[in-house]
Amino acid sequence: MRLDKLGEFGLIDRIRKMIKTDSSVIKGSGDDCAVLKFDKGRYLLATCDTIVEGVDFVRKDKPYLIGRKSLAVSLSDIAACAGIPRYALVSLGLPKRYTVEFVDSLYKGIRDLAKRYELNLIGGDLSRAERLFINTSVLGWVEKRYLVLRNGARVGDIIFVTGTLGDSHLGGHLRFQPRIKEARFLVRNFKINAMIDISDGLIQDLSHILEESRVGAVIYETLLPQARYIHNLKDILYRGEDFELLFSLSNKEAKRLLRKRLPIFSPIGEIVKKNYGLILIDKDNRKKQLAIRGLQHF
Amino acid sequence: MRLDKLGEFGLIDRIRKMIKTDSSVIKGSGDDCAVLKFDKGRYLLATCDTIVEGVDFVRKDKPYLIGRKSLAVSLSDIAACAGIPRYALVSLGLPKRYTVEFVDSLYKGIRDLAKRYELNLIGGDLSRAERLFINTSVLGWVEKRYLVLRNGARVGDIIFVTGTLGDSHLGGHLRFQPRIKEARFLVRNFKINAMIDISDGLIQDLSHILEESRVGAVIYETLLPQARYIHNLKDILYRGEDFELLFSLSNKEAKRLLRKRLPIFSPIGEIVKKNYGLILIDKDNRKKQLAIRGLQHF
Repeated sequence: MRLDKLGEFGLIDRIRKMIKTDSSVIKGSGDDCAVLKFDKGRYLLATCDTIVEGVDFVRKDKPYLIGRKSLAVSLSDIAACAGIPRYALVSLGLPKRYTVEFVDSLYKGIRDLAKRYELNLIGGDLSRAERLFINTSVLGWVEKRYLVLRNGARVGDIIFVTGTLGDSHLGGHLRFQPRIKEARFLVRNFKINAMIDISDGLIQDLSHILEESRVGAVIYETLLPQARYIHNLKDILYRGEDFELLFSLSNKEAKRLLRKRLPIFSPIGEIVKKNYGLILIDKDNRKKQLAIRGLQHF
Repeated sequence: MRLDKLGEFGLIDRIRKMIKTDSSVIKGSGDDCAVLKFDKGRYLLATCDTIVEGVDFVRKDKPYLIGRKSLAVSLSDIAACAGIPRYALVSLGLPKRYTVEFVDSLYKGIRDLAKRYELNLIGGDLSRAERLFINTSVLGWVEKRYLVLRNGARVGDIIFVTGTLGDSHLGGHLRFQPRIKEARFLVRNFKINAMIDISDGLIQDLSHILEESRVGAVIYETLLPQARYIHNLKDILYRGEDFELLFSLSNKEAKRLLRKRLPIFSPIGEIVKKNYGLILIDKDNRKKQLAIRGLQHF
C-alpha cells in the first residue's frame, strides 16, 4: 500500500502501536513532546521536527527566516507542554550548490531565536542532500505540577486559543513567535487541563485533544480570532502552521482568565460529551457537524 | 562561496565559532556527543545523525538495514563517549510513492536494534520528502567518572581500534554493531584517555583526537586490523563508516589490556608530540607523513 493511501496520521498510529517503552517514559509519542523522568521536581521534555524545502518553505524564502522557523516549530512543541526549552541539536541536509552565505544567514536565524529563549545550541550534523532540510531536536524541562498534555480536557471546560488564526500562508508560518511565555504565564497562574499547538490546523489539532481526552467540543465561528486580511473560514479552521496554543480550562478558571482582559487569549468554545463530536455554531447560529481534517503530509 | 569549496569540516568550524553555551553544557558541539549536566553521578549525552538516500545508502538497500543503520550511527556516537543509550527520537523524510511495507521494515530495523540496547523510542516526526532521509536523536547517560572525550590523549599513550577496518563498502556500513558493550567494558576496567568512533575514516577521526588533544601520532601499517578481503591500504586508512572505536590509554593501562588477549582490541600505534604530526610506518618500515583527509560530505 502506498503511503498516501494510509495518510500521515494512519502511519503515525501504525508506528505508535509497534512501540513499547519502560517506566522512565511518562509519555512517549502521541503528544507534542516526549516526557521523561528527570529529577524530583521536573520532567525532561524532548521533541523533534523537520522542515523540508518545497513542503515547509520554498527556495526563495529568506534563509534567516527558514533557519528561524526550523527552531521555532520545535519550541512551539515545548510551549504546548508548558516547558522551558534548554538545548537544541540541529541537523542540516544541504545541497552542495548552496553558498556559505546562505548557511550563515540560516544559522543566524537559529541563533537569534535561541538567544531570545536562552537556549543552548549543543551540536548537530551536516549531510549532503538534493533538497534542503533542517531537523531540530529540542530538550527542555517542565516542573511536574505544570506539565500539560492533550489528554486532560473535561466536559464543561472552556476552550481558548492564543493570538489570531489563518494567516500562515501570508508569511505567518515563517515569522510566528513560539508561545513559550504565554504557556508559562498560563500554568503559573491557572490550572490548564489540556494544551496543544496548532500546527496542522485548528480542527485537526482540536481533534487530537478531543481524542486523547475522550470528549467532544462546540466552537463558535463568531468567536474565532481572525488574522488581519483573513475572512475565509476554511483558512481559519483547516490551514496549518498558525503555531498558536489551543487549550482548555475549567469554567471557573476561565472566568478568572477572562477577568484579566488579556486580548491574546480568546475563548472559542467549550468541551462537551464525546458523543456530540465536534460542532461549529456558524455566524447565523446554525449547528454544523465538522469533519476532522487538516494539514497532512501524505 | 559554494559549500563544496569550504568543505564539511570548514563549515562545521565556522558554525562552532558562532555558538556560545552556558555552564550547564560540559561539552557542546565538537565531540561525538554533547555532554550536559544531569545529576550527581552522571552526565546526560545527546547526539543526532541523519542518513540520506543516495549518500549514506541507496534505494535498493534493504529497508530493514537502512532503518537499523539510522539508529546504529547515533548509538556509535554514544559508545564513543562510553555512555548508555536510553531514548531515541526518529524523524523520517518519506517520498509519497513509498509503501507502508517499506516503512514497516524500516521501523523493524530500528526497533530490533533499540530492543537490543533497551533503548526507548519516544517519538519523532514525519515529513514528505523527494528522497528518503532518517534523522535519529539519541539521549543517554554516562557516569561522570567514565566519560571519555576526544581531548584526553597524552604523549606515550598507546592507540587501539576495535574490530577490523576497511569493509564498509562491502556492506559493513549497513550491518555494523555499535560498540556500546566494548566501550563500557573498557571504561569499567581501564582508564581510557581519549575515544572517538570511526565514521569518517581512521585518519580523519584519529586527526580529530590529535587536534583536540594537541598531540601527534605514529601508526604501523602491519598492525592495522584488516577486514576480510580487504588489502587496499587506502580503504583501511581513509574510507569512512567502519564505526569501530579508536581510543588511547597509557602504556601501563595498554599492557593490562593486552594481557587479557582479547582479539577485538588491536594496538595500532602511539601518541607522540604534536610537532611530529601524523606518521605511518609502512610494511617496509618506511616513515610516511600522512595528510589528514577522509570522508567529507561536501
